[in-house]
Amino acid sequence: MPKTEHWQWYVEQFGPTELHHHAIEETFFAGRTAFQEVAVIRTAAFGKMLVLDGDTQSSQADEKIYHESLVHPALAAIDDRRNVLILGGGEGATLREVLRRPDVVRATMVDIDGDVVELSKRYLPEWSAGAFEDPRARVVVGDALQFLRDDRDSYGAIVSDLTEPLEDSPSNPLFCDAAFADIKRRLVPAGVYVLQASTAGFHNMALHAKMSRTLRRHYRFVRSFYAHVPAFDNDWAFLACSDAVDVAAVPRERIEDYVAGLRGESYFYDAETHVRLFSLPLYLRRELQKDGDVF
Amino acid sequence: MPKTEHWQWYVEQFGPTELHHHAIEETFFAGRTAFQEVAVIRTAAFGKMLVLDGDTQSSQADEKIYHESLVHPALAAIDDRRNVLILGGGEGATLREVLRRPDVVRATMVDIDGDVVELSKRYLPEWSAGAFEDPRARVVVGDALQFLRDDRDSYGAIVSDLTEPLEDSPSNPLFCDAAFADIKRRLVPAGVYVLQASTAGFHNMALHAKMSRTLRRHYRFVRSFYAHVPAFDNDWAFLACSDAVDVAAVPRERIEDYVAGLRGESYFYDAETHVRLFSLPLYLRRELQKDGDVF
Amino acid sequence: MPKTEHWQWYVEQFGPTELHHHAIEETFFAGRTAFQEVAVIRTAAFGKMLVLDGDTQSSQADEKIYHESLVHPALAAIDDRRNVLILGGGEGATLREVLRRPDVVRATMVDIDGDVVELSKRYLPEWSAGAFEDPRARVVVGDALQFLRDDRDSYGAIVSDLTEPLEDSPSNPLFCDAAFADIKRRLVPAGVYVLQASTAGFHNMALHAKMSRTLRRHYRFVRSFYAHVPAFDNDWAFLACSDAVDVAAVPRERIEDYVAGLRGESYFYDAETHVRLFSLPLYLRRELQKDGDVF
Amino acid sequence: MPKTEHWQWYVEQFGPTELHHHAIEETFFAGRTAFQEVAVIRTAAFGKMLVLDGDTQSSQADEKIYHESLVHPALAAIDDRRNVLILGGGEGATLREVLRRPDVVRATMVDIDGDVVELSKRYLPEWSAGAFEDPRARVVVGDALQFLRDDRDSYGAIVSDLTEPLEDSPSNPLFCDAAFADIKRRLVPAGVYVLQASTAGFHNMALHAKMSRTLRRHYRFVRSFYAHVPAFDNDWAFLACSDAVDVAAVPRERIEDYVAGLRGESYFYDAETHVRLFSLPLYLRRELQKDGDVF
Repeated sequence: MPKTEHWQWYVEQFGPTELHHHAIEETFFAGRTAFQEVAVIRTAAFGKMLVLDGDTQSSQADEKIYHESLVHPALAAIDDRRNVLILGGGEGATLREVLRRPDVVRATMVDIDGDVVELSKRYLPEWSAGAFEDPRARVVVGDALQFLRDDRDSYGAIVSDLTEPLEDSPSNPLFCDAAFADIKRRLVPAGVYVLQASTAGFHNMALHAKMSRTLRRHYRFVRSFYAHVPAFDNDWAFLACSDAVDVAAVPRERIEDYVAGLRGESYFYDAETHVRLFSLPLYLRRELQKDGDVF
Repeated sequence: MPKTEHWQWYVEQFGPTELHHHAIEETFFAGRTAFQEVAVIRTAAFGKMLVLDGDTQSSQADEKIYHESLVHPALAAIDDRRNVLILGGGEGATLREVLRRPDVVRATMVDIDGDVVELSKRYLPEWSAGAFEDPRARVVVGDALQFLRDDRDSYGAIVSDLTEPLEDSPSNPLFCDAAFADIKRRLVPAGVYVLQASTAGFHNMALHAKMSRTLRRHYRFVRSFYAHVPAFDNDWAFLACSDAVDVAAVPRERIEDYVAGLRGESYFYDAETHVRLFSLPLYLRRELQKDGDVF
Repeated sequence: MPKTEHWQWYVEQFGPTELHHHAIEETFFAGRTAFQEVAVIRTAAFGKMLVLDGDTQSSQADEKIYHESLVHPALAAIDDRRNVLILGGGEGATLREVLRRPDVVRATMVDIDGDVVELSKRYLPEWSAGAFEDPRARVVVGDALQFLRDDRDSYGAIVSDLTEPLEDSPSNPLFCDAAFADIKRRLVPAGVYVLQASTAGFHNMALHAKMSRTLRRHYRFVRSFYAHVPAFDNDWAFLACSDAVDVAAVPRERIEDYVAGLRGESYFYDAETHVRLFSLPLYLRRELQKDGDVF
Repeated sequence: MPKTEHWQWYVEQFGPTELHHHAIEETFFAGRTAFQEVAVIRTAAFGKMLVLDGDTQSSQADEKIYHESLVHPALAAIDDRRNVLILGGGEGATLREVLRRPDVVRATMVDIDGDVVELSKRYLPEWSAGAFEDPRARVVVGDALQFLRDDRDSYGAIVSDLTEPLEDSPSNPLFCDAAFADIKRRLVPAGVYVLQASTAGFHNMALHAKMSRTLRRHYRFVRSFYAHVPAFDNDWAFLACSDAVDVAAVPRERIEDYVAGLRGESYFYDAETHVRLFSLPLYLRRELQKDGDVF
């Protein structure tokens, strides 16, 4: 009987017939918060990973693909970046990307699960990379919906980094017409609302298309874009929504200027990547043109 | 003890720490040919799948992403498509895509493993979709390298759909300077040599970059492009090589004309998808600029 | 990416939290009969295996532990072995063990699934080892319950080698008071009814105890015995029922005489093994003494 | 995508072709001591489990099968139980079983890995059940071999509860002629040396047989016995060695008296279980009679 090299595995289950096994090298934390089951582990292939309710949230190896895609197309598209609001984003990486622009004066992050924020500070400092200590950062532990209703501020960009709106997820109430209207009330007229918006893989485009259909009732421009995030084992989609600006059509030079103004080095995003993100394959465009239900 | 719903699983292993389990619904064939271990199975998520030596080759659900990417950018870029050569491609789907253009007069496919061709005809007819019966198709069962050396014909496009050049793969001898020179000798001066060229995921870009570096010694234009193919669990890369034409820069109108001239319906590729395919993210461009070893 | 050594696995599921993976080396057959899902595979550790509805039925490496235990204690205990009835037992190994005694004049085997019998003859000849060709063997393809009701014969031993009486199993109707009465009507007064009787492992003794409780209402002596069968990943239990003979108390000399009269060589059973089989551990005796429900 | 119920699994690997997955419900500890990799987890089927170097050491659900078998046959066989030595046994369950006899005056336990002892006290108190606090218990953290050489005491029983003597295991030096002689020097003439002695399953009886052959050169009576321990997925074997007493032949009445003198309740062992343990099946007796190599 040979000595087992890897005895502990993280198994992500994509329905009853697809499983993905990652060998766990170290478990930093595994437990429940008031809102969800949380695990912080390290795997050989992806480095550290944050797992919420059994779903991969981000991995050290490729979180930049996700977080740069979520933040930069939207911020590149707007003129006034002084005030940015982040919904969710407990790891602090969305905050980190927002704060890379010096013209951001205040970035407010509202996450319901303070324990995830604390666990991320402790075990995943590479994600926030100092962002939580940035004087421009404001972290609110609380319900995003309540925050939106109580708040009287206006934002040039609202970045939604919530978990999938599954039935028993804390993010579920954020996906309905009323909540979308609450979000829009906090956006300046020239602002952009960008959200992680489920998967764009051929198996499961339906939820993304439903989000798109719903938001097209709220905004003039609603653009889908996506990147393959290996740790998610999926093409991950986003929606950039605005009444003033078509994020898919931001000119190359404008993006180049925007990128030049970012502190630190990017991994994934620049003007050419922007073109990739917003150039959608035929099957996804067909899906997005279909009629169907809305939230 | 509840009744097991799925008792048979196809486990693709990506190194010792990453496994992907697909529940098998039906096994059509599992055995060895003279060259490789072959399985033809059906899974819930991907439909029928061809597995060679334990690696997924293509799946019913998303093979068009792969095969349309392999064939159409190259064919769209050239003027003279009368004579096309395919190396490998036993399933017949590369042949199918080539023959969708009526201006292809002859498509020659050379695959070393006649058993895989026969198994594909029998169990995977959706892949070839009648292509093997097209009078323009010529199927040669034999060694591609030998064919290239014996052949006296010239081709507007040579499409390489070989398996990964792993040490004991029958495709291995096709990846060396001598073989690349043999291929180029069969190409018309304005022709394009396009090949599936390993993975572009952040974990394993090295083999792709090595192929690119090697081929840049043979051609003026060597362009990387890639698509995420879910059944491969990876971003799959290709190289389009030519002394005459930059496939990455084919004008949108030319692609639109090309696509309009295709018989049948496409799933993945058109002018916008072309832009996506050739717009590379920052980390991949950085990798491709590095120095390193060659074949 | 290293070449995968084992890409196909048989996963036996013991409830939602316990899985056992066996690497499949060869699949001889996988399909459905009129009654059940059947697979005949070969694994590295257990050789050939028969799998019905996702549950291991027997393996080449250890089927003798199961089949010798099922047959010989009962046959050793009775005087008149001329006429033996087997319920189920499609592989032919129970028949093989019964026919090893020359004083068996006729062994009748009734299995509902003729396809399993044929598949066993074709792919698992080591199990029957010629038994199907023995002129003393009579194979009836049909419903065991119907056979018992139509039959007018009497048997010294009735050996039940049916699958687990799960809700949708073809063996389910054989486990009820009426069926037990039908079986007893075909037994000579000094006869023994022996049955495979579910598991005796600490997790799941309940079904075995329920069978025992039910049969104690039909017979004077009902003795539990069990052996660990590695391919089943479990301690497998049997019940020996008789109004005349206590199979647990067969004298050592009688077993030695019986074993000496067996053709061929045994792997597992002899007088010392008999003692092991019927010497039950404390926790199982406690479970068997409890009150509870019956069939 | 349904919510994953179990995302973390303990995978015990029995060679490259057999895997056993247990869903992990809780991880109490996972890390390295100076000697080995240690994990303390809870699974649905087996309760808490101790895992050393990827091998299951004991489970809450069935550790009594193992520990009662290891301790009681040997103690039942001897007259003078005042002084007992335990090698290994970090969980404290062997100590617990030894101390259940009031005529044990002192039980000395020597385990090299003090961290495992401390982790067991903290997370597995059900195993020791107060034994570490018993004034008769003496726990020595140190090398067992060194202890045997330095010690001047004599023991009625020496109970070896070491891990498998794999190449890089800390228990490896305890399995050689010199170490066996050291052990015997500490045994009273009428004493018994009992050891966990690898597996008795048909796949891997070789190591057990080798231990038996070696010890037969040291003792007049060397008796194999075994029990199926579900958490080990195996028949687990032991050897009882003595120059004075044949543990396999202890009379039933003596065992009944011994058992009556135990404090607390037993789960597995009594006089009938003793008979089961020492009644070996034919294939194992054959294996034990073979010639072969020794330590």
